[in-house]
Formats: sequence, structure tokens, C-alpha cells
Amino acid sequence: MAEPTRARPAGLSRRRLLGGSAAVAGAAGAAGIGWGAATLTHREHDRDPALDTVAFYGAHQAGIATEPPGHAAFVGFDLVAGVGREDIIGLLKIWTDDASRLTQGKPALADTEPELAARPARLTVTVGFGPQLFTAAQLDDQRPHWLKPLPPFSIDKLDAAWCGGDLVLQICADEATTVSHAVRVLSKHVKSLVSVKWVQRGFRNAAKGQTMRNLMGSVDGTVNIAPDTPDFDRLVWDDGGYRPWLAGGTSMVLRRIAMQLETWDELDADGRAITIGRTVDNGAPLSGTKEFDEADFQVVDQYGIPKIPPSSHIARAHHTRDEERFLRRGYNYDDAPAPGQVSNSGLLFASFQRDIDAQYLPVQQRLAEFDALNQWTVPVGSAVFAIPPGVPGPGGYLGQQLFDSVATR
Amino acid sequence: MAEPTRARPAGLSRRRLLGGSAAVAGAAGAAGIGWGAATLTHREHDRDPALDTVAFYGAHQAGIATEPPGHAAFVGFDLVAGVGREDIIGLLKIWTDDASRLTQGKPALADTEPELAARPARLTVTVGFGPQLFTAAQLDDQRPHWLKPLPPFSIDKLDAAWCGGDLVLQICADEATTVSHAVRVLSKHVKSLVSVKWVQRGFRNAAKGQTMRNLMGSVDGTVNIAPDTPDFDRLVWDDGGYRPWLAGGTSMVLRRIAMQLETWDELDADGRAITIGRTVDNGAPLSGTKEFDEADFQVVDQYGIPKIPPSSHIARAHHTRDEERFLRRGYNYDDAPAPGQVSNSGLLFASFQRDIDAQYLPVQQRLAEFDALNQWTVPVGSAVFAIPPGVPGPGGYLGQQLFDSVATR
Repeated sequence: MAEPTRARPAGLSRRRLLGGSAAVAGAAGAAGIGWGAATLTHREHDRDPALDTVAFYGAHQAGIATEPPGHAAFVGFDLVAGVGREDIIGLLKIWTDDASRLTQGKPALADTEPELAARPARLTVTVGFGPQLFTAAQLDDQRPHWLKPLPPFSIDKLDAAWCGGDLVLQICADEATTVSHAVRVLSKHVKSLVSVKWVQRGFRNAAKGQTMRNLMGSVDGTVNIAPDTPDFDRLVWDDGGYRPWLAGGTSMVLRRIAMQLETWDELDADGRAITIGRTVDNGAPLSGTKEFDEADFQVVDQYGIPKIPPSSHIARAHHTRDEERFLRRGYNYDDAPAPGQVSNSGLLFASFQRDIDAQYLPVQQRLAEFDALNQWTVPVGSAVFAIPPGVPGPGGYLGQQLFDSVATR
Repeated sequence: MAEPTRARPAGLSRRRLLGGSAAVAGAAGAAGIGWGAATLTHREHDRDPALDTVAFYGAHQAGIATEPPGHAAFVGFDLVAGVGREDIIGLLKIWTDDASRLTQGKPALADTEPELAARPARLTVTVGFGPQLFTAAQLDDQRPHWLKPLPPFSIDKLDAAWCGGDLVLQICADEATTVSHAVRVLSKHVKSLVSVKWVQRGFRNAAKGQTMRNLMGSVDGTVNIAPDTPDFDRLVWDDGGYRPWLAGGTSMVLRRIAMQLETWDELDADGRAITIGRTVDNGAPLSGTKEFDEADFQVVDQYGIPKIPPSSHIARAHHTRDEERFLRRGYNYDDAPAPGQVSNSGLLFASFQRDIDAQYLPVQQRLAEFDALNQWTVPVGSAVFAIPPGVPGPGGYLGQQLFDSVATR
């Protein structure tokens, strides 16, 4: 995983060198309103984290092994009728150019709000291809076999408004304004070729090194695979053995999971612990005492009853084979409630795995079959995407490996 | 303005004292995923700003003179039919108790997700009364004369879904999860007495001491009144001379202003500068060179033409008398676009002033009459509220001054 680097580090160092705290205090003193000036003193040596950037170029797209920033927008697009391979290549070149600049804190070409690009805040832009893009590009034979709508599950109550899409952008940053600017630039620059199908915005917050909590109050994502490990490389990144163009790429499943908070509220902490299989307060599996204790489904209590109920969420979600594991990278959502309701909240469940059929599906099938948590969670949106590899360096474009593979065969 | 203080400072100091960087590294090392561990080292001496709190008790409600946090939700409620004075007092006591805890990083009483209260992130909860609340409480004679729907303006295209409300909560914090939790707790605890009329979420980002930019790319809020100045106290806080119960309170105008970004994009930087009256890049008035230069509407160019066009936004919005000034405290919004659209963005314009008629209305009337910016901005929501004073200390409740004033007369 690339370490975040500074946008314009030289300029900042120079300012600090020349002016030090006096320069900072002077800037604040000039402000008409004065908000913030009072708290500047003890922060003057802090860097502004909104200037941190994540590398754009690389073997893999950013936004997957990247530590998740606080805000995300997932944008699904449909291709306009008649758009073909050359148009798609053109669109991908535009997105590549825009993303290579915006992620580094620079305006896009012809950016009409260049000032909004100045705080990249670890912005990442991740592009994915839906099943029908391959048909539009006359590349059906290059579509991975796992790239198709998920089979229907009995627990689903899908709303077409949150499903599918020919293309997806996952846009993440630590500042919401940065996300908005990137969404707008990337959407409007290609608006003659695509229509926006859905926009799903989310957020996640946690202390450094700790697990985020979802809006049910549960730690979410404790069991995950760590970037920069052999497991991660093997389970997330495609090696090109099946579809050579996909080497260094992966897949994304995006599920919009509504939470039934009104009835969830009726459960006390013990009821929640039995449902999830973890304590609410510190997230420890009921077989252990600390969050990152390995869940042991064999441990029984004094009556011989398993401490982690076999029907609990973590018992059902636990991989039965090492090869079923995948990367979870979800975000909370909290939209305006419908009339008569109090909340419209849930989780934008995003997972990344090399093979949806071999990794995500077995787990999802077990959960759909039975999971104590299903009483309070309802999948209302579903989409799958192939995530092409990264752009190795300037001059290339996202997805080039796919289109070059046909040009040269 | 109260300085933010730490939630649980003692615990943190102790951990740092005992463990130092080793303790921090250890905590990260225990994480299954490892995200964040790599960046911990150079941050080990940083405090976690999500533990900062803003005082709840005081002469004024927090969330007005408070430096605006990064996220806000404005929630409008209607009283359920038949709800009267005693019910309203009960509701306000619940909100007071909940807010006094949540803002200090503690769970509300019977909080079903107490863990989500642990990161207050400068949470503030500000309560306001709509015009009809006074009727429901049989206190029509205590309603301030300025508390009524704004007159219609020719530029308005109001949607009733974003207008009015018998009560409002302005909930602000630096983390979106904190805002969601507070909105849910405060809404559900009184759901037998009120229905949610609208929820409007927003965000703002800026470097410390700098002005936020809106989604048109413009600096927004340069001309403002600074907290803790005589002007602020005089222009924002009521002194009780007219309605004794309102001493220490104020009023809030909330306007939802949609931005027509598709046509705004057609304007270049010069066109934007002439429309706003400020340069786009650094926000300087066209009569000056730096953002906080006082706008001088008399300065002319070599042809005798005013450098700041009289039709520009800042020329029209500028107060003609000192007494017209008010506090701006807006947030950007960026919701999912309607089918066929690219963006659904704008500004949640929130202003605070002692007297809406004397301060806000003259400015708004000038803008509605003519403002070059009107071509790209459309008010789609409008609401006004009386903001009661703060709760002086434990045992009191929000709005008590109003209800006590009738009990004892």
C-alpha cells in the first residue's frame, strides 16, 4: 500500500521555514470572522491532512488496498444507447487524465472549479466495468465468468434504482467537498456518453488502527485481510491466468443493505451479542475477550452450548475455507427518511475479491440461507463490477490492458 | 466562544504517560487489517480531534458562535396534532438531557448504540421553535413579531418538502457518524410527539482560519461577524428588551439554495468574478487584492466604471447600514441527482440574527430584486425559527425561560 504523500510539500516547508508560527497567526488574523484563530496555536506544527495524496499510478488501482478515507461516493452509470468501443476508450482516457490530476491535488483539465481540487484529502478514484460494458464494446468473450448480476436471494428486496450499472466510480476522500468535486468533474466530463444511474454516498469514522462502527453500533470489518500480505495479493488481485487483461485487477460487489433500526432498537446488548456473535462494547467474539481474538466456534459454555451461536452473523459469515475470504470496505449511509419514518440508514457493503463466484457467493449464500441478523437487515441494492488493473504510468489509461488485448490478437 | 475541551482527557494522558508510542503501536499491531498502522508513528503525539467537545451549558446555545464543524444536519419537525404545552416541555426536557450528554461524548439515557456516542467530535445541538409551536403551546402572545414565514420572493421556487417546521434541530460535528447518531437519538426519543418533516445534511471544509468554498467554487462567508466581539453580541444575541424570555437567544433563517451548476459551468473565471464581485482564486473583492480587503464600491477603473459591478452579488448583499449585518453559517449540500441530471447541489444557507425583519430581510429583498448571481441560484426551501437562549446549568431545560415566563405572570 502506497504511503500518503504531501501535495506541494515544498511550498509548505518554505512557508514554515520563513514564517513559522507568525505566518500562520498572521493568516488567521486577517480573517474577518476569526473562527479557528483561537485554536491555531497548539496546531501550528501539525500538517494539514487535507493535503495528503494517494499515488494514482501503479500495478493496481488505488482505493482498494488504500486505508479507507472518511467519505465515499459510489456512482453507477449506464452507457448511452449506441456508445461503442471507441467511445468507451475515449471515456476511460478522460477519466484517467482527470483522476491522475485530481488525486494529486491538481485541477482537472478545464476544471471549472479548480480551487476545489486544492484539498485532495487522500482522494482515490476507482473505476469498474459492469457486465453490459463488454457487450457494448463487442468484447463479450473477454467478460469474466463471475461478472453477472448476483443470483436472487430470498432476503433481497431489491429496488432497481440501486442496482446494476455499466460503469462505476468509487470516489473516496477524507473531505466531503473533495468527493463532491471529483464526482461532478468525472460525471460531467463524460455526460454525452453515459447517464448517472445512481449515486450512493457514505461515511466511516474510527480512531487510527481501530475498526469502524456501523449505524447499528456494531464494529464492522474486524475480520478482514490485511493489505501488503501474501493472502491479500492472492485473494484480491487477479494474476492474469484466466483473463490476461485482468492481471492486477479484481472485482467489486456493492450491496446496499438497509438497517431496520426501529426493531433493532428493541434488542438489548445481550440480544445483539447473540445475534452478531460478538459483544457490542468491544466487539470481542463471544468465545474470547478482545476484538481481534480469533472466533472459536467450538467453545461451549457450562451447559455444552456453543458460546457463539451457530445462527449468529459471524458464525454464518465465517469463511469455511481460506479461499473464501475477501476484502470488506464498507461505508455507512444515512439518507433523509421517507414520510412517517425516523431513519433511512444502512451500510454500503463493498467487497473486493478475485473471483465473486468462489469467494463472495458461498458466504452470501450461507447468510441468505440463515443469519440471525437478517431480521434487521434488508439488501435493497446490488451491483457487480470488474475492476481493471492500475495504470502503470503517464500515457496509459484505465482499462487499456483490456482494449490492447483485442487490438493485438 | 468556548474553547473545545477533551472528552476523557485523564484516560488519554494516562495511556500516553504509561505507554507512549509503544502503546499506540501495540494497539495498531493487534488489528487484523492493519490499515492505519503505517501512518501512526508520525501522529503518535497528536490528540484525536474526535474527542474534542463543546460546552453544552451557557447563556447561549452552542452551535452559533461555535466554529462550524465539518458536518451538519438540519432536521425540521412538525408537532403531532393535539400536542400541547406540557408535551412540548416534556420534549424539550428530553432533548436537553440527551444533548447535554451526547455533546460531552456520553451516551444518552437508554441510548441503544452507546458506542456511537464515544466520538463527540465537537458535537453541538441547537434547538429552534417554529411559528406554530407558540400556537400549540397557547403562547401566541410570546411569539416574536419576526417569527413568520418569509414573504414570497420572485426568485423563489419553493418546494413545500423543504419548508417550515414547528421545531428544528441543528446538529453539527466533525464526524458524519456522530451527526447520524445524534439525529437518530434525538428524533426517536420524541417520535410520539413529532414527525420528521425534512432532514437536510451538509458539509463544509477549509483549512484552519480560512473561508470555506461552496460547490460553485466561491469562498462563502468572507464578510461575517466575529464571535466574542461587541458587534456579534449586539447583532446576534437578543437582550430581552422585547421578549424577556428570549434574552441570550436569537433567530435562524434556513434557506435551501439550489445551484444551477450546468449553466454556471459556462461562465469563465472573469464572468464569475463580475457576477460575484470577487476574484475566484483568492476571493479578493474586485476593488482590492486580498480576500479580507474591505470591498470599496466607489473604486472605478480607467473608464470610470466601478470595479465591483453594482449588480454583483457582494454589491447587492452588502449591508447598507451596520445594523443589517448578521451571522452566516452555511453548509454545502450534494444529494443524489434526479434522473437525467448530473448534480443536485447547493447551499444550506443558515443565518443567525437578533431580528429577521431588521437584519436579514432588507438584504434578502435587495438580492431578490436584483443580484447577478440569481441566474444560477434558486431558493427551493425556506424556514425560520426562534432560537431560545442556552441552559445555564444542570437542572434547567431548553426553552424554560419561555415557559417559566407564563407560569409566573
